[in-house]
Amino acid sequence: MTIYNFSAGPAVLPKPVLEKAQAEFLDYSQSGMSVMELSHRSKEFDDIIKEAEQLLRDLMKIPDNYKVLFLQGGASTQFSMIPLNLAKGGKAYYVVAGSWGKKAYTEAVKLSKTIPFEPILLASSEETVYDHIPQIDSSQIDADASYVHITTNNTIEGTAIYDLPETNGVPLVADMSSNILAVDYNVADFGLIYAGAQKNIGPAGVTIVIIRDDLLNEEPVLSSMLDYSIQAESQSLYNTPPTFGIYMAKLVFEWVKELGGVAEMEKINREKSDLLYDFIEASDFYTSPVKNKADRSVANIPFVTPNKDLDAKFVSEAGALGFKNIKGHRSVGGMRASLYNAFPRQGVLDLLDFMKTFEAENQ
Amino acid sequence: MTIYNFSAGPAVLPKPVLEKAQAEFLDYSQSGMSVMELSHRSKEFDDIIKEAEQLLRDLMKIPDNYKVLFLQGGASTQFSMIPLNLAKGGKAYYVVAGSWGKKAYTEAVKLSKTIPFEPILLASSEETVYDHIPQIDSSQIDADASYVHITTNNTIEGTAIYDLPETNGVPLVADMSSNILAVDYNVADFGLIYAGAQKNIGPAGVTIVIIRDDLLNEEPVLSSMLDYSIQAESQSLYNTPPTFGIYMAKLVFEWVKELGGVAEMEKINREKSDLLYDFIEASDFYTSPVKNKADRSVANIPFVTPNKDLDAKFVSEAGALGFKNIKGHRSVGGMRASLYNAFPRQGVLDLLDFMKTFEAENQ
Repeated sequence: MTIYNFSAGPAVLPKPVLEKAQAEFLDYSQSGMSVMELSHRSKEFDDIIKEAEQLLRDLMKIPDNYKVLFLQGGASTQFSMIPLNLAKGGKAYYVVAGSWGKKAYTEAVKLSKTIPFEPILLASSEETVYDHIPQIDSSQIDADASYVHITTNNTIEGTAIYDLPETNGVPLVADMSSNILAVDYNVADFGLIYAGAQKNIGPAGVTIVIIRDDLLNEEPVLSSMLDYSIQAESQSLYNTPPTFGIYMAKLVFEWVKELGGVAEMEKINREKSDLLYDFIEASDFYTSPVKNKADRSVANIPFVTPNKDLDAKFVSEAGALGFKNIKGHRSVGGMRASLYNAFPRQGVLDLLDFMKTFEAENQ
Repeated sequence: MTIYNFSAGPAVLPKPVLEKAQAEFLDYSQSGMSVMELSHRSKEFDDIIKEAEQLLRDLMKIPDNYKVLFLQGGASTQFSMIPLNLAKGGKAYYVVAGSWGKKAYTEAVKLSKTIPFEPILLASSEETVYDHIPQIDSSQIDADASYVHITTNNTIEGTAIYDLPETNGVPLVADMSSNILAVDYNVADFGLIYAGAQKNIGPAGVTIVIIRDDLLNEEPVLSSMLDYSIQAESQSLYNTPPTFGIYMAKLVFEWVKELGGVAEMEKINREKSDLLYDFIEASDFYTSPVKNKADRSVANIPFVTPNKDLDAKFVSEAGALGFKNIKGHRSVGGMRASLYNAFPRQGVLDLLDFMKTFEAENQ
């Protein structure tokens, strides 16, 4: 039975990447050691992290005035690091278009009780359970503000921001965890981009931060590990980084490059998601909770059947046939197909076949 | 050529563990997925993290009133988390017997500029470049203090604390990064134990925290990710944990258990380190910078030849023969043999043969 893993993260990884890592798992580059056993100060690992950075710079066309950091702690740690380093006592605007954006805002509010700055809710779609991207009124943004925070892709709710908001010259900070390398954004439009690795980059435990030089803090923050300037000066080697995760990321970057880069990846992803969305649109049985087509995520596609009992039956029968982790997030219900870069087109085609059969049997 | 990896961390891992991980790298437990591809909310991963915790509890005989956390960010993040959660405005004593203990103290001082509490240097051997464990005057410890921080093993300088200091009832907090599972400490003697994984536990990117229930903070701290209570309530699943690293840790715990547990591990480690120390003691050519035998680390054994040129020659010739990463830390110089749990006894015997030859050729 072919297994298709629709998990929202940790998610499916490219098979050629896994095979390469497996082949050299006990002996990396004739070192006689596993990548995991390499000192992070060794020549071998230095090559790995430098190549990983260069590949990411090439893939995302990252300008020279941006630093690339490989950190730990996931996007959730960034929710605190961003205001800690960037707020500088000023206004920090948050667009809350999903559960993760809400967490980012909530952490900023929590931090502001100790470190004085002003987190401001600029726009929210919480009232309608984040079923759309809220309108952003740029005229409300103070030009002296520290940053405007958005989430480019809402993993749980299946929405995304493709047209970036006008921010009145204020740096745009983006949680790009679930569509980095999947949608071809222009890095120069952002002041800071961050992403947990476990969707399009590699195993959980690596966090990418891309930060424009002028945003690096001049004053030290309360913890060296949470200090972008210290991490940047140390080139992500302030302490021992997650070496194996960074190695896996490097292999994934090579794989994306071989496939043609991010623009090509986005094209392939749009083909995959269009297959599913077009099918849902044409169906009287399946429905997308995201009504505004312009807001629909290419990466995470939630859908429902006519009722919850059928949703549960769908998840159960699909799972038995090898369509794994297609259950929607507990806060949304229904189903969710996460079609990240490594998710094969054939998996979508096979899912459509199953959806047709299920519809016929349960109408 | 047999490769012996003397790296201080990331370090050698048990070969049977690497082989098992390699064999199931693409298909874990007939799931059709790599461990890296498993959702952290899946049944498969839930079993992995629960088994990992239970194995560690069994190995270290962790009492039920202690929580076990699998976190990210390394010991360096703990340097901030500990005072952030435990200091509570009180006195926090630091024993600085090595470079890492100094970093822990320095981070506490840094944090205290924002979060009021009183870091106090209780004892230090910095003046003699940490060549011994400083005397601790317990009568100086205020019984109302929040904690006393020690480093049980000084990775860089090759010293260790085996007899724990009397703390006047104040909770003892220990960085056990380089001798956890290698020396049989009694967990109940500590309020909190923490350790980066990359020496005796698994790949870099996992941090173990063992904390006594009554020390869990009642008031939230400024970041959820840095909040022990939140991490404990979420059973290390507040956000996506480093799933593959935790899986590797589980395999290493199984391996330690099979070998007979921590007491047996310590016995094997003492045999390995005695071989090397006894040889150095008997030699007129090699010297240990740690004069006080009671302070000598079982895990990290620094030594020097009569001069720096010979040290460099030793490192070069040893490396060419497969004795990798035996160069001492840049702050200490000379050589350092890190003999963690996974380092084979035969590697020590072969090193002694080389040391004899090198001495004969260079005397």
